[in-house]
Amino acid sequence: MEDKLTLMIPGPTPVPERVLQAMARHPIGHRSGAFSATLERVQQQLQWLHQTRNAILLLTGSGTAAMEAGIINTLSRGDRVLCGDNGKFGERWVKLARAYGLQVEVIQAPWGQPLDPADFAAALEADVDKTIRAVILTHSETSTGVLNDLQSIAAHVKAHGEALTIVDCVTSLGATAVPMDSWGLDVVASGSQKGYMMPPGLSFVSLSTRAWQAYERSDLPRFYLDLGRYRKAATAKSTPFTPAVNLVFALEAALTMLEREGLEAVFARHERHRAATQAGVKAMGLKLLAKEGHGSPAITAVIPGGDAERIRQHMKERFDILLAGGQDHLKGQIVRMGHLGFVCDRDVLTAVAALEAVLMELGEGHIKPGAGVAAAAAKLWP
Amino acid sequence: MEDKLTLMIPGPTPVPERVLQAMARHPIGHRSGAFSATLERVQQQLQWLHQTRNAILLLTGSGTAAMEAGIINTLSRGDRVLCGDNGKFGERWVKLARAYGLQVEVIQAPWGQPLDPADFAAALEADVDKTIRAVILTHSETSTGVLNDLQSIAAHVKAHGEALTIVDCVTSLGATAVPMDSWGLDVVASGSQKGYMMPPGLSFVSLSTRAWQAYERSDLPRFYLDLGRYRKAATAKSTPFTPAVNLVFALEAALTMLEREGLEAVFARHERHRAATQAGVKAMGLKLLAKEGHGSPAITAVIPGGDAERIRQHMKERFDILLAGGQDHLKGQIVRMGHLGFVCDRDVLTAVAALEAVLMELGEGHIKPGAGVAAAAAKLWP
Repeated sequence: MEDKLTLMIPGPTPVPERVLQAMARHPIGHRSGAFSATLERVQQQLQWLHQTRNAILLLTGSGTAAMEAGIINTLSRGDRVLCGDNGKFGERWVKLARAYGLQVEVIQAPWGQPLDPADFAAALEADVDKTIRAVILTHSETSTGVLNDLQSIAAHVKAHGEALTIVDCVTSLGATAVPMDSWGLDVVASGSQKGYMMPPGLSFVSLSTRAWQAYERSDLPRFYLDLGRYRKAATAKSTPFTPAVNLVFALEAALTMLEREGLEAVFARHERHRAATQAGVKAMGLKLLAKEGHGSPAITAVIPGGDAERIRQHMKERFDILLAGGQDHLKGQIVRMGHLGFVCDRDVLTAVAALEAVLMELGEGHIKPGAGVAAAAAKLWP
Repeated sequence: MEDKLTLMIPGPTPVPERVLQAMARHPIGHRSGAFSATLERVQQQLQWLHQTRNAILLLTGSGTAAMEAGIINTLSRGDRVLCGDNGKFGERWVKLARAYGLQVEVIQAPWGQPLDPADFAAALEADVDKTIRAVILTHSETSTGVLNDLQSIAAHVKAHGEALTIVDCVTSLGATAVPMDSWGLDVVASGSQKGYMMPPGLSFVSLSTRAWQAYERSDLPRFYLDLGRYRKAATAKSTPFTPAVNLVFALEAALTMLEREGLEAVFARHERHRAATQAGVKAMGLKLLAKEGHGSPAITAVIPGGDAERIRQHMKERFDILLAGGQDHLKGQIVRMGHLGFVCDRDVLTAVAALEAVLMELGEGHIKPGAGVAAAAAKLWP
């Protein structure tokens, strides 16, 4: 039905009406006092979301820009880094780090499995000369719906004493706790079209004190993504280059809604939706790609057994629900259900019910009518 | 008056209501057929605006990102380049080129003067070994309101035969003709919050066939701004990273309005507003910063003689018109009146009238009441 499509993909995520309305305000001058005041408020809200006292720098760009900024502002050509890779985004950081001439050692896990913290511990403990400069990884791997054990891996990096922890939190921030300070994370990167409940176009990166010390030594060339320029401008409540003013209006509106909901409630909501989605899918006899106990609160990747693209097509055409497909070798093998951002219990129940109806129609698997919905609903009243 | 402020700064510029409304639509999936169709339409419109058959690549980022992309995708470390510098943005490209290890020779003109094409001709003709790889310059210098003679400079580069012409058209594109193909421009960069009549957050870069050949040789590190990735994605009507979907909606709405107005009419409107603004300001006895005959159709920099910041403040507080101030050493010396993008004759007449009223109130200069408005109005009926 025209204009009825609802997004259950891992980004862009649904956006509240008031966020869209905030964005539709006429732009104001980005060097004005009014805009500085907005930046100042948003800064406090971002620190609250990151659970940190570090400044959060606001970039006009995609999440990849924030992640690239985190890497090229703290490292130097030839630096030795460990890079976790258990999905499409892990792969991306390997490519990115190599594009800048870093010496990358990849710690791998199969798609669907979490990275093993013990692998990081072993590599870091073996590094008695302390030549590893950074550990780069993805918190919530969007391509597989796996949540990596960031807290444990960061603890191993802390024990190493020299390396920085650089993390892609694009689909974890706002969906699950990312306590930057207490976990000792050095670079946290994220993007606006995920847990932030707003459209794409802004990204965010925060550096710890140690990461800023590394910035002073870093020799990689950069200009638009030179975070020193953003830090300097931020002290004057400004940005070094013209920011996406209207997206900042949207950001303020969205963060205000998240604040009102409360951090713990936001995380509990995402956890509830993960549990309900997983339970519903399993009750339909389908498999999950993510290893049991390691599913992301942001996204669930489902192995339907049959033709995943046909299921996606029916979900879209019959029920106006957009799901994501598999990437690369998983294309046609999985459907990915996003449940992050502005998603309520009704949305999750609806998605499970629609998936069940589609499977029945397609005659896929051995569906007991209502089993998926019943299992999901039970998890929504925990 | 609350919410009455009108922007007469050189960006963000005023945005039509229907562009704001288009932006406020709920985002759609950026990998969907519907979004591909939008990208395809927008591509044709962008080529029309650039007067080119080259693809226009769409970046989520500020104008500086597009300019940086143009430089780092076509050049290599140590490359010899000529860089025009007659204002803040010329300066920026010198800094950017040096940040990437280019060997920069600066061709300067004082702020307010245009770059002299003869200076470029002399340097290029002297380069018998053809070691100059690129000429980098700003078309409309936003800090001074000077329009550089891009056509002549590009012709000299063409005569050289080896160097590329890399141009910042951020405040010229959409305000004056930038016929990429007929002038033989190799890299054209621009940003959304100017002649495009939309909010900031998108930028655009187009490469000629020769520039793409240079891309193959270029060795500078890049990832987010690697234009090869954008070109590859564009052939599949997509983008390599999540784009600012809602800003693309706004772009389509704005370009559709410009198409309807017609390219020649758009340029004539900006030229009329330049002439009216200049005439009005001169009739008030004020000086222009830009050398006579070299004023930009996008922006007029005025030397009021008295305290420029006080004039700006009164314009804002009494008449709800935001003007820009001077940058760097010109702070407090000039006011800059933007007249690009969604600006009509009424806006220009109003700005001149308000400036006249403010000068009378402040007792600045020897204002003959009505002289400025009369002179401006005469230019609006050419």
